Order: sequence, then C-alpha cells, then structure tokens
Amino acid sequence: MRAIVMYGAGDVRIETVSDARVIESSDAVITVTRACICGSDLWPYKTMEHSDTGRVMGHEAIGVVEAVGRDVRTIKTGDLVVMPFAYSDGNCEFCGKGLQTSCVHGGFFGTEELAGAQAEAVRVPLADGTLFVLPVGKDDALMPSLLTLSDVMGTGHHAAASAKVVPGSIVAVVGDGAVGLCGVIAARRLGAEQIIILGHHRDRIAKAREFGATDVVSERGDEAVERVLEITSGLGAHSVLECVGLEQSTITALSIVRPGGAVGRVGVPQDAKIPVADETFYKNVTISGGPAPVRAYIEDLLPDVLEGRIEPGRVFDRTTNLDGVPDGYRAMNEREALKVMIKF
Amino acid sequence: MRAIVMYGAGDVRIETVSDARVIESSDAVITVTRACICGSDLWPYKTMEHSDTGRVMGHEAIGVVEAVGRDVRTIKTGDLVVMPFAYSDGNCEFCGKGLQTSCVHGGFFGTEELAGAQAEAVRVPLADGTLFVLPVGKDDALMPSLLTLSDVMGTGHHAAASAKVVPGSIVAVVGDGAVGLCGVIAARRLGAEQIIILGHHRDRIAKAREFGATDVVSERGDEAVERVLEITSGLGAHSVLECVGLEQSTITALSIVRPGGAVGRVGVPQDAKIPVADETFYKNVTISGGPAPVRAYIEDLLPDVLEGRIEPGRVFDRTTNLDGVPDGYRAMNEREALKVMIKF
Repeated sequence: MRAIVMYGAGDVRIETVSDARVIESSDAVITVTRACICGSDLWPYKTMEHSDTGRVMGHEAIGVVEAVGRDVRTIKTGDLVVMPFAYSDGNCEFCGKGLQTSCVHGGFFGTEELAGAQAEAVRVPLADGTLFVLPVGKDDALMPSLLTLSDVMGTGHHAAASAKVVPGSIVAVVGDGAVGLCGVIAARRLGAEQIIILGHHRDRIAKAREFGATDVVSERGDEAVERVLEITSGLGAHSVLECVGLEQSTITALSIVRPGGAVGRVGVPQDAKIPVADETFYKNVTISGGPAPVRAYIEDLLPDVLEGRIEPGRVFDRTTNLDGVPDGYRAMNEREALKVMIKF
Repeated sequence: MRAIVMYGAGDVRIETVSDARVIESSDAVITVTRACICGSDLWPYKTMEHSDTGRVMGHEAIGVVEAVGRDVRTIKTGDLVVMPFAYSDGNCEFCGKGLQTSCVHGGFFGTEELAGAQAEAVRVPLADGTLFVLPVGKDDALMPSLLTLSDVMGTGHHAAASAKVVPGSIVAVVGDGAVGLCGVIAARRLGAEQIIILGHHRDRIAKAREFGATDVVSERGDEAVERVLEITSGLGAHSVLECVGLEQSTITALSIVRPGGAVGRVGVPQDAKIPVADETFYKNVTISGGPAPVRAYIEDLLPDVLEGRIEPGRVFDRTTNLDGVPDGYRAMNEREALKVMIKF
C-alpha cells in the first residue's frame, strides 16, 4: 500500500510499504477515506533526525473497517469509523475516567511504534476501545468536520474544558492555528461571553471572528499582555487556552489569566519547565491540560457537528490526495496553508 | 506597645513601637490575645537583608476589638475575632468568589506596608471584610485550634481543595511541617481513603499518623517517588498536596501524581519556574493552589473545630509570651519546635 513516510526534517516521501494487517486479535484494519496533516506533524518536519527506516506519519483519520481480529466485538467490517489520535482499551482505570490518552495499554499513531494514518490503510490496536462508528456515509458533506473529531476539534475542546470555560466566561485563546480556531469554536459552544483571539495572521483571524471571536489582539509579548488587560478591565481572562506550546506563548497565557482563573494548555510544550510560575502561584491560577482524550469527547461533540451547530471542518483550507502530501507539509510549514485534508 | 521586629536574617528583637491606631475609617484595632510564628516567617529569618527600620512580623492572630473606624459596620468593640493573614474588602470581584487573597483593595499583614500581629495590638484595614467574629470567650480551650483558622489550617485545606480531594481519594502530602500536617487533617476531613505523608521527622510523622496519615514515605528524591508508586499500584496519587515550595519537593509532588490527577501547591515557591512540566503535560495533571483564601474557609472549618471533629491546634508544640518569640524563631528554624504559639 502507499503511505507517507518521514525520513528526517523536511524529508517527506510517498512510499510503498507493507500492507496494514491484523496482528493482535483486538486489532482492526481500516481503509482510510480521509486523513490530514496536524500542526504537531510540523515539529518532526522541522527537527527530526535522519532515520534509515522512516516513520509512517499521521494520526487523524476516518475510514472503513476492512478486517477485524477475532476478539473484536463492537466494531464490524464495513463500519465507517473515526480514529482518535491515540488508541486505548476503553476499560482501564484511566479510560473509565475519560482520559484515554493515559490508557495503560494505549499508545499513539504515527510513531516509531505504530504506523500512522497518512496511508491507504492503517492497523488500529484495541479497536473496540479506540474506534467510534459514524452514523453517516463515507461521502457525507460533513466529512471535514467529522474528521476534526479525531484530533483538532477535540483538542480545542480539551483546551476550553481544561480552562474551565462556562457560560459568561471571558476567554483568551493564544494561537491562531487550527487548534486555536477550534478552541474559539469550543469556547463559544460552552457559552463564553467574550472570546479574545491572540494571533497575527489576517486570514486566520478572519476565520476566528467567523467562529465567534469577539476581540483580536495582534500585538506580541508584553504589548499583547497589556492589550488583553485593557480589554478585560485590567483583570485578565477567566480562561486562557494555550494552543502553541512555546515559552513565549506560555508566558503570555499565564500573564493574561486573572486571579483564580485557569489556563488550559494543549500546545505540545517545547520546554521542560513552566515559566512565570511564581506569579501564577500568587494569583491562584490553575494550570491544566495535555494530550486531549478526544475519544471521550466524540459523543459530546458529534451531535453538534451532525446538526450543523459547529463547523470545525472549516479549518481545512486545502484538500489533496496522497501525492500532494509532501507539498502539503511544506505549505503548512510556510503558513501558506492552515490545515491540509487528504482525500483518498 | 511591644512588638516583634525583624531587622534582618536571624535578627529578631522585642521593641517598643508606636501604638496601633485607627487610621482609615474602615480600620479596626485589635488587642492581640494569641498569635504565632509561621513557617513562612522563616524565609525572611533566613534571608532578609538588613533594614534600618525593621518590619513588625506576624500575620496570624486572635484578638479583642479595641476600636473601630467610623465606617465599620459589622465588627464591634469587644468582639473576639480571628484575623486572616490577608486583609480584604469582602465585596470585590475576587472576594465575591471566595478568593480574598486577590482582593483588589487587599494586602498582607507583617509586610513592609502593614505592621504584623506579633505585637500587643494590630491595625486591621477593611475590618468588615477581614475579621471573623468568634462565638467563644478569649480563654476558651479551643483557642489553639481557632488560631489555626487564621492561616495554617486554612492553608492545609486550600492545598487539599486545590488538589481536588474527594471521598475515596488517594492523597499524598509532601512536607511534614505544620501546613503538611494540616493538609493531612484536611484530606481526612474531605474523605480521603489513603493519605501518604512524605517526611522524615519522627515526631512530626507520629503526629501525621494521629491526624489520619495511613502511610509514611521517609525516603527522598527518586526513592520517595518509587516508594509512592509502589504503594499506589504503580499509578501515583489522585491528589498531591505540595506543602514545602522548594524545587525538589515540587519535582517530587509532580512525579507522584497519577495521570488526570491534581497537585495543590501552598508552599511558597522558591523558584520562578515549575520543573518537570512537560511530564505533567503528558499526564494531563492539574496544577493549582497559591495563597489560601482562609477568610473564605473559616465558616466551613469553624463548626468542625467547635465540635472537636478536627484539632489542628495540636500543631503547636510550644507556647511562649512575647519575650520568648526570638527564641521561638530560632527553635522553629532549627526544627526543635514545629510551631510556636504566642499567648498574651
């Protein structure tokens, strides 16, 4: 089968690899109908050391179940399913609490241990706990929005939930990438009264406004902090969604949250330490978040997608087939594209 | 009047200073009947640079109201009151949410701005919002436990509340000082099933066991982490109370919390950054806490003190008068005393 293999920074190739197949009795194999490129795929695209064997990329997909192992009970051949970016058994201590990204038997797609979904097919471990059957056909018009349930919309929701957004909240979203934009959707969906987007890409900001952002802060660093304080009567935001993961964005996020407020961080942290943590102590700020348990959120978000109340699929601004993926990485890395969908 | 004045590290004197008096119309002046030395007083005792004017210390007290300003409405001369370590107006954005330590008009006792309560009398700004009238006489046998409501018991409770302790929780308490011991009391009070105390002072550990600790970990660093993981089926604690504030204790706290768990930090942080924050991200750990809004907690904790269900006053292992305070600082600093009460 054909798949996208990354061999090192900037080195993304279309290759023929061994067909995905059932190995464990709890596996399923799905024929991928939609996949996409994630902002987090750009970290290895920028920094990965050369590998002779390469890594089959991708952790977001919708597909049709092609085969299941003999112990798979709830997933059937022919089902159209959404695949969360992490696989999980569905019944451990952590899955039981809706934290599937900490499943004791779980793991992640598109890693050295498990081939990813930027491929014609993908092996899905622990299929019963991992996959979610969709009640639509594979060419449904809602496909882009449904695809975001595998990661980016669930991640935006996790940022908002971790930042404790409730009806009436004043929310700030740090970062205008696809996750930040889904954070805006999530904050609005949870009833935020004011949503301040911090970013400086004109087209993304325009999309953020369409999604519900009420204020835009395009300044950076200290000036951005001052501007948010101005907008919020000098107090800061109740909830801040950190959707970048860099030191500067984290400092900004922690500096614009009001005393007693919460920061939900979903940007993969590029530093081992959290800065300005003494200030957050004196302000009694809560810092929460991490890899989103998107599997837990699908049930919650799906009705809103199916009934058109949210349209997270609008974060995709380019669609390609497998052949266009290497250029899709380039375009996302150069900020020419916001998020690239792969249609098989 | 006589008061304890710190002039620099290790330099604590008994001095005669100007009498406390009403300055603002919202002030009260209380004659102190009980005060104490706080673990946080030991930071300046170790590190304060020499000051020619000195600083009247102390931020925990019970006293009798001696005078009130003309705008004071709810506090009357003759009332026996507990004084939280922070003063607050009681009606701002933050006081309204029970976060009096972030009051927009508030501040702290025993600072350069406001004289403290290790003195015969103390001026209390914003008396109506700050003071809490006690329904007992000034020589009541419960006085030591009531005194802890001004800081240490409220702080232990804040650690437990910030760490989301609920009935059935597995809790770890990092630090066996007076705050850690009150954290044990708070965790038990909130229904924790297992309470692991991390510390290595035999007498304090014995007290922790009396307060409800079920397990003791006396190892340090990585060994302490391993031991807690052993005790908790390899998963870690649901809730961790960080009651020290040093880098090592913070690393320990963040390393023994299980995925999805919470760390409540009340130890005043001695570093600007939070360490091992990338690990906490991957585990979806919540980090919360800060200066305890003890004013908000008095109503909640008071009935349990009055009815003898909790006895936080047992953290005091030495009582002295004002003359004994300099030696009290020395004794606490050398860990000869756990916490010193001052009786006037």
